[in-house]
Amino acid sequence: MEKNRIQIFDTTLRDGEQVPGCQLNTKEKVIIANKLELLGVDVIEAGFPISSPVDYLSVQEICKSVSQTIVCALSRAVEKDIEIAGLALKYAKRPRIHTGIGTSNCHIRYKFNSTPEKIIERAIYAVKYAKRFVEDVEFYAEDAGRTENEFLAKVCENVIKNGATVINIPDTTGYCLPEEYGNKIRFLKENVKGIHKVILSTHCHNDLGLATANSLSGIMNGAEQIECTINGIGERAGNTSLEEIVMIIKQNSHLNLFTNINTKLIYSTSNLVSECMGMKVQANKAIVGINAFSHSSGIHQDGVLKKRETYESINPEDVGINKSSIILTARSGRAAIAYRYKKLGYFLNKNSLDLVYSIFLQYADEKKEITDIELKAILEKANLNNGKTNQVLHTNANGNSRRINVL
Amino acid sequence: MEKNRIQIFDTTLRDGEQVPGCQLNTKEKVIIANKLELLGVDVIEAGFPISSPVDYLSVQEICKSVSQTIVCALSRAVEKDIEIAGLALKYAKRPRIHTGIGTSNCHIRYKFNSTPEKIIERAIYAVKYAKRFVEDVEFYAEDAGRTENEFLAKVCENVIKNGATVINIPDTTGYCLPEEYGNKIRFLKENVKGIHKVILSTHCHNDLGLATANSLSGIMNGAEQIECTINGIGERAGNTSLEEIVMIIKQNSHLNLFTNINTKLIYSTSNLVSECMGMKVQANKAIVGINAFSHSSGIHQDGVLKKRETYESINPEDVGINKSSIILTARSGRAAIAYRYKKLGYFLNKNSLDLVYSIFLQYADEKKEITDIELKAILEKANLNNGKTNQVLHTNANGNSRRINVL
Repeated sequence: MEKNRIQIFDTTLRDGEQVPGCQLNTKEKVIIANKLELLGVDVIEAGFPISSPVDYLSVQEICKSVSQTIVCALSRAVEKDIEIAGLALKYAKRPRIHTGIGTSNCHIRYKFNSTPEKIIERAIYAVKYAKRFVEDVEFYAEDAGRTENEFLAKVCENVIKNGATVINIPDTTGYCLPEEYGNKIRFLKENVKGIHKVILSTHCHNDLGLATANSLSGIMNGAEQIECTINGIGERAGNTSLEEIVMIIKQNSHLNLFTNINTKLIYSTSNLVSECMGMKVQANKAIVGINAFSHSSGIHQDGVLKKRETYESINPEDVGINKSSIILTARSGRAAIAYRYKKLGYFLNKNSLDLVYSIFLQYADEKKEITDIELKAILEKANLNNGKTNQVLHTNANGNSRRINVL
Repeated sequence: MEKNRIQIFDTTLRDGEQVPGCQLNTKEKVIIANKLELLGVDVIEAGFPISSPVDYLSVQEICKSVSQTIVCALSRAVEKDIEIAGLALKYAKRPRIHTGIGTSNCHIRYKFNSTPEKIIERAIYAVKYAKRFVEDVEFYAEDAGRTENEFLAKVCENVIKNGATVINIPDTTGYCLPEEYGNKIRFLKENVKGIHKVILSTHCHNDLGLATANSLSGIMNGAEQIECTINGIGERAGNTSLEEIVMIIKQNSHLNLFTNINTKLIYSTSNLVSECMGMKVQANKAIVGINAFSHSSGIHQDGVLKKRETYESINPEDVGINKSSIILTARSGRAAIAYRYKKLGYFLNKNSLDLVYSIFLQYADEKKEITDIELKAILEKANLNNGKTNQVLHTNANGNSRRINVL
């Protein structure tokens, strides 16, 4: 069965940059955009040009710097916004304007003090206006997650009729459950005239911890584009993590989907974004956190040392991380300790290991993590063979030899 | 329709504490256990007593300190582990031993170098042995996520027949997609003899960012207990976040489920765990991150100021956070700036606001975040009314009056 391609729309530089305190300057934005192009994203949302002079300039410089990737600029359904977005995109080889308006009752009533009919009029006008500047116009139905499906379908049908090329269904407040969001996408696929001429896109927020699951549910029900950010950053609890949804697609061939992402660049891209924004990736972040492939409990360490797959369903090399790591803590067992000593050049027999392990536990209960320095101190304290060692030549599986100490 | 209760099994002090560098001492563990009891969890997994002397002692002290909540101790399917767990639980009012063994082909073959038949024998023996010490025995089928459903059902049936009171289905490597995990739970519900006499439990890991979604899929398909941790901490990418799954259940009454959690204590519990472990909660963590209810973009700030629900589907007060915050950055618009000036005692008319806004943007493009000090500097620079202000008495909606400056 032929696989369907899912387009990756990266909004690290727009929605991601809305994280308080993470604003980037133009130079940093261009560096990240170039990296995103290498990574293989299909669309870079470069900014919201009307929002500030720096944002305008950044979008313009990204357009000049990026070669193949579509560059997208955000706007509200407001003439001035769209004009400025169009201007900022002037140098793009493949420009896209992203425009839209809130469609939920809450947004129509409280944000716009308007009516459903007037919202549709504004949506149509915005798309038509954007078409004056670019061919590729993406429409977002803000707060689509809380918009009734029938009205949402009506909005989509109207903007498609007027030239929208991509339809984005944002769950703006991170409100939906996966089943609900997937059903919404399927409803649109089945009920909107012209929907098969355009790309249907997900845009999910993580307020309930479901952004990735909702995006997955969206593509399993017919969406062809995912809007996401590196490290899952973004307004409030953030957006769908690019690395999570891309690896889900890669790991699950039965989905019959693929992306153009070069997954081996995921880890370095994550680091670049984290450094530029001064926003550390949490240790237990899926895929890219420093603990994502670390094992501290004895049971897990023993398993991983026997066969990596016992406790890792993703190969860390697939995302550009060299290997899983064995961290020594009070949770570690003999297997991990023997492994680490072997790396230091010491082979411990069973009795030696038992003695060393008992001393190790005393150290470990006081310290968070035991390093190589402490391992050597433990060895001294154990005073095995009265401090004497037997050196032997050890040849590893690759045929390389080195002297190790047998204790 | 009557709602079904979902039991919350908190494993912050066991699986959560396996985070490298986050080891707790006994005193800290007891403090957290007492807080978890106040929070309303049904089960506290207090530790893995065989793993270290401190862990043994901590489980014992938690048993003495906790009054109503079930206290659970982990063990492998090994006599010594189970004995030590039983001893550590001696003072518990409601003790539970958690024991189990790997059931996937990968674990049976590479971790145990064993056969499916022998694994079932060991599982049965472990449950029977644990029953010598306590009545309440939970069995985990490690790596159930990658275990064939038919074999898993056979294992479950056998351990139920021999006295297991709770059956835990861990997706140990964070491998499953939500649909797959939910189908697994449903398969067991429909095919395991005696399954309705026991509690069926989820235990999901976040390696693909799907722990919460998988747990949700589990309870939507018949599981009655969720194993989770505060802040989602745990081995590698961590476990299901208690705060996420609890708030999903609370926010979605159509699920017809409820928990006993006092959600107003979620935020303070999150802070306590974070402080004790020295593990900062990432800013964009769902529900409990400092940005979870922060708004920095102008569009969102304007919306929230008009009506909170436009950009928040959860009320922050429900999780013990006093209010959503409006952070001023280059993404902010006039509405947010006017709001913050009003809080400082300045009312700006339209012309004044336009002038102040243009100066604000210059400041904001240079700085990550604009504080009250800078707002005052901007006001000085604008030199409105040549520095003169008109003071008027302003009465707010609660009837409280104060003098504000009109500019």
